[in-house]
Amino acid sequence: MREIKALPLSKKDFVSFGDVIEVDGIADKVINNGKCARYHNLAHLDILEGYPGISLFNAQTQSLPYELNMMERHPFGSQAFIPMAYVPFLITVAKDYQGFPDLPKAFISTPGQAINFHRNTWHGILTPLNAPGLFAVVDRIGSGINLQEVFFESPYIITC
Amino acid sequence: MREIKALPLSKKDFVSFGDVIEVDGIADKVINNGKCARYHNLAHLDILEGYPGISLFNAQTQSLPYELNMMERHPFGSQAFIPMAYVPFLITVAKDYQGFPDLPKAFISTPGQAINFHRNTWHGILTPLNAPGLFAVVDRIGSGINLQEVFFESPYIITC
Repeated sequence: MREIKALPLSKKDFVSFGDVIEVDGIADKVINNGKCARYHNLAHLDILEGYPGISLFNAQTQSLPYELNMMERHPFGSQAFIPMAYVPFLITVAKDYQGFPDLPKAFISTPGQAINFHRNTWHGILTPLNAPGLFAVVDRIGSGINLQEVFFESPYIITC
Repeated sequence: MREIKALPLSKKDFVSFGDVIEVDGIADKVINNGKCARYHNLAHLDILEGYPGISLFNAQTQSLPYELNMMERHPFGSQAFIPMAYVPFLITVAKDYQGFPDLPKAFISTPGQAINFHRNTWHGILTPLNAPGLFAVVDRIGSGINLQEVFFESPYIITC
């Protein structure tokens, strides 16, 4: 049993794996006569052989300790997970080591944070920690096989 | 004073103005070993001379009755408003009449609904009805002037 302690999600720690989409610092633009702050272009949408689209994922909630028994990646596109409720979710990622996920890292978001996995980044399935597990997902729309999965013989246990 | 009664947001009533992004009917795909339902490609991203990106809008909450004193449109791109809290928001739209907004319509979303305005559709500013007024916005990233605004001499009053 291999235990991994989840860290608070931050741009600094997540930078190798993707973008943290969050309100951070001074807005790029204040619009609508001062009523709205725009934080501009916070994710690198990297889509090959297709185009980006918006889908919804409705996912079962999970709790900690969480058993991570597989990871997946998408060779043809980045993937953004945008929670549609003001609640945290669990994010698991790993660097690649010879075609397999290296030792995973785990992060817990703060309400109001979303993420965008870089193209071809190993990650766990969508794991909301609170209901409703409803997310807008911005990822590749296109044909062909855009999914690689690896199942672990011995799972990792994610704790907080 | 011209009063407009807001209707519940529905695909049927909103179809001329944009997409309602919602969990509706049977999922297009069940993924992650049954743990997640995917509703696939729910918005038509229509971007000219640029590319779609993800930004955040942090907007002041508003209450009803709401005074609609201007509308705007974006000639070069569709614009999706995705609430990051499970709360309703107000949407105002209008058809075009000789370069100006015709009589507006108003809708109130149900928590879990997002919308995508068709390119060049007249709409009011982002009007959350509950805090936090945090939205992910998928719209055009690019240079040039992508905004037309019309200010009304006499405002419309939106009620529920």
